Amino acid sequence: MNDGLLIPQGFKFACRAAGLKKSGKPDLGLIVSAVPARCAGVFTRNQVVAAPLQVTAPKIRSGQCQAVLMNSGNANACTGQRGLQDAQTCARMIAEALTVPDELVAVASTGVIGVPLPMEKLAAQLPRLVEGAGATGVDELARAIMTTDAFPKTSGRTISVGGRECRLLGLAKGAGMIHPDMATMLAFVVTDALVAPAFLDQALRAAVDRSFNRITVDRDTSTNDMALLLANGMAENEEIKADTAASDQFSEALAAILMDLAKMIVRDGEGATKLVRIQVDGAVDNEQALAAARSVATSALVKTAFFGEDANWGRIIAAVGYSGAVVDPDRVNISFDGIRMVESGLGMGAEQERQASEVLKRAEFTVTVELGLGSGSAYYFTSDLSYDYVRINADYRT
Amino acid sequence: MNDGLLIPQGFKFACRAAGLKKSGKPDLGLIVSAVPARCAGVFTRNQVVAAPLQVTAPKIRSGQCQAVLMNSGNANACTGQRGLQDAQTCARMIAEALTVPDELVAVASTGVIGVPLPMEKLAAQLPRLVEGAGATGVDELARAIMTTDAFPKTSGRTISVGGRECRLLGLAKGAGMIHPDMATMLAFVVTDALVAPAFLDQALRAAVDRSFNRITVDRDTSTNDMALLLANGMAENEEIKADTAASDQFSEALAAILMDLAKMIVRDGEGATKLVRIQVDGAVDNEQALAAARSVATSALVKTAFFGEDANWGRIIAAVGYSGAVVDPDRVNISFDGIRMVESGLGMGAEQERQASEVLKRAEFTVTVELGLGSGSAYYFTSDLSYDYVRINADYRT
Repeated sequence: MNDGLLIPQGFKFACRAAGLKKSGKPDLGLIVSAVPARCAGVFTRNQVVAAPLQVTAPKIRSGQCQAVLMNSGNANACTGQRGLQDAQTCARMIAEALTVPDELVAVASTGVIGVPLPMEKLAAQLPRLVEGAGATGVDELARAIMTTDAFPKTSGRTISVGGRECRLLGLAKGAGMIHPDMATMLAFVVTDALVAPAFLDQALRAAVDRSFNRITVDRDTSTNDMALLLANGMAENEEIKADTAASDQFSEALAAILMDLAKMIVRDGEGATKLVRIQVDGAVDNEQALAAARSVATSALVKTAFFGEDANWGRIIAAVGYSGAVVDPDRVNISFDGIRMVESGLGMGAEQERQASEVLKRAEFTVTVELGLGSGSAYYFTSDLSYDYVRINADYRT
Repeated sequence: MNDGLLIPQGFKFACRAAGLKKSGKPDLGLIVSAVPARCAGVFTRNQVVAAPLQVTAPKIRSGQCQAVLMNSGNANACTGQRGLQDAQTCARMIAEALTVPDELVAVASTGVIGVPLPMEKLAAQLPRLVEGAGATGVDELARAIMTTDAFPKTSGRTISVGGRECRLLGLAKGAGMIHPDMATMLAFVVTDALVAPAFLDQALRAAVDRSFNRITVDRDTSTNDMALLLANGMAENEEIKADTAASDQFSEALAAILMDLAKMIVRDGEGATKLVRIQVDGAVDNEQALAAARSVATSALVKTAFFGEDANWGRIIAAVGYSGAVVDPDRVNISFDGIRMVESGLGMGAEQERQASEVLKRAEFTVTVELGLGSGSAYYFTSDLSYDYVRINADYRT
């Protein structure tokens, strides 16, 4: 899927264990650029915003960033004034160790809500984290931000701009509280491309909208989500500006990386055993198609039927029916990986059902709902809802 | 909870097994009034509307009804033109056996979507169903409409209007696809009170809004929901009109019955082990309070935490944060049956957490979220999300 995970020029990674995770596994991660990078960011729309986002969002909006500190095991959310100070202190400690201004250090946290950061442990480890920069690969870094994730999530692409090789490399974490906008999800993409600031922001937003904003595990939108894009220009390419051949290339590579990561997040959805694409075509418009796709993708009954490998199209058509999208039941077709189960609102019988049941045994498949009303189209990725989802979330803090 | 389950004058019930349920248990139910009753109804807002609703809704709107046929085991939904004809045929067979006009016979179905009704079996049983009217109690009738329900749901009240005793009796089914507006839910209330038609409709809508529209099991809104209210006037009371002492009494009794039934539905939610009231106070207005309460009540993460008996207030505050209601995290208080867990947005520590954990072991408890912004207030009832929810819904059709 990836054409290699080359680290973009001028970026170094580090990770350490500070004891925030009970397991003793690495829970601190660091990205450092040799020079200040241009940056763009997308943040949760939850009104309850964790301290690290409050500290980081204004820094990213100022347009420059040189280092990102991340920790797992503690979200530093709902921690009040103290949490805000702790996030600032962490950024300052990294800045001092790197001898860069505070404003160039972003912080990101993920983990349990409502528990203050153990600042003594962090104060002991943060300088060592900086010292270790360069010794860590992207997979190790991705592991350091895992919480309930089962595997690290990384993806990369390389493009050529005016003969200069530009590398893009992304990593993400997320498995629960996954729903736009956005998820208990952290994503970081670094590139050595030189990119015009306005286009950088535009490219990130467009790519997020087609990837992280099209996935759901459990409809829960977290307090801590962020996606950051850092571009340090060390590839020395001609600056990439909007509406050029190079910008198309860059957008495509970025979108491909985020889509890789988004699918990995759903595949790693808590308890998930399947990755299902819900494709809605023929809606009145794209917005209605998206509403219908989202409704199917988030239905607990549809998701449990996927887990049971039951081609229960009644639940799918019911979810379309309450989505808010205009529906004429007599025009609806539904297929599972091309096996037509419903035509003009009616079931196609036992043989089709048998074939569709085979499709549902696959680890990945597509459900296509044709509404037959217009040319609106949209997709959404979802997981199934399994016993393990319940187990993981009933036991999370115990 | 009930002050007796007296059958209102002039109503008879019947039930039979027609083989729609694999178990062979009763799957047909009938309510017959000795005289045409005034009636009101509330129907699903799902755009995919099952055949029985298409047949019944116009009849109810005409204001009179004398009999209601109900079946479980088959929803007669997504069955096209044939399903519509089948529903009409069923109503006609009942009407002929009762020698009343077709227009006075309502039909209601619940069960699997997308399978035509087995009309031969029904044709054999419907006349016998009518013959048996009067031999069935309300609990038996409630059992005949059960699908995944674990227990029958009935409730009654008696009021006195100008010295005449008026009885109200309700029954309902529902356990999955439970979410406004509305649920895989059928509810029927019969009364011998004489009630002005306009007020009858108004009283039903108000009571539904405070009961069936405030419960959620799994956010799924079904194709088949209806709540019908039949008032045959045989108590010979002075007609109950709006804005009188009698109308207050009637509204209260009706609301109490629907609330009883609504709570029973949540308590019987698929896999549910707990009935939780989410109370939101201090919102900017009632609408925002309802949005916040609904968001908490439908969060899969909150519901799995309830199942795990984990007072995970971080998930609650996160769900409030993405509800759309205005929230100032620093003003939020959260309590579990009066045990304050969060004050001004901060956790209250280990001792409170221990006490709250005790509350979560209860079969019923209330989570109160105070937003501290205004006087808006609302409640919602929800269940926990357990392994059994997944088991029941993964296996439903197999």
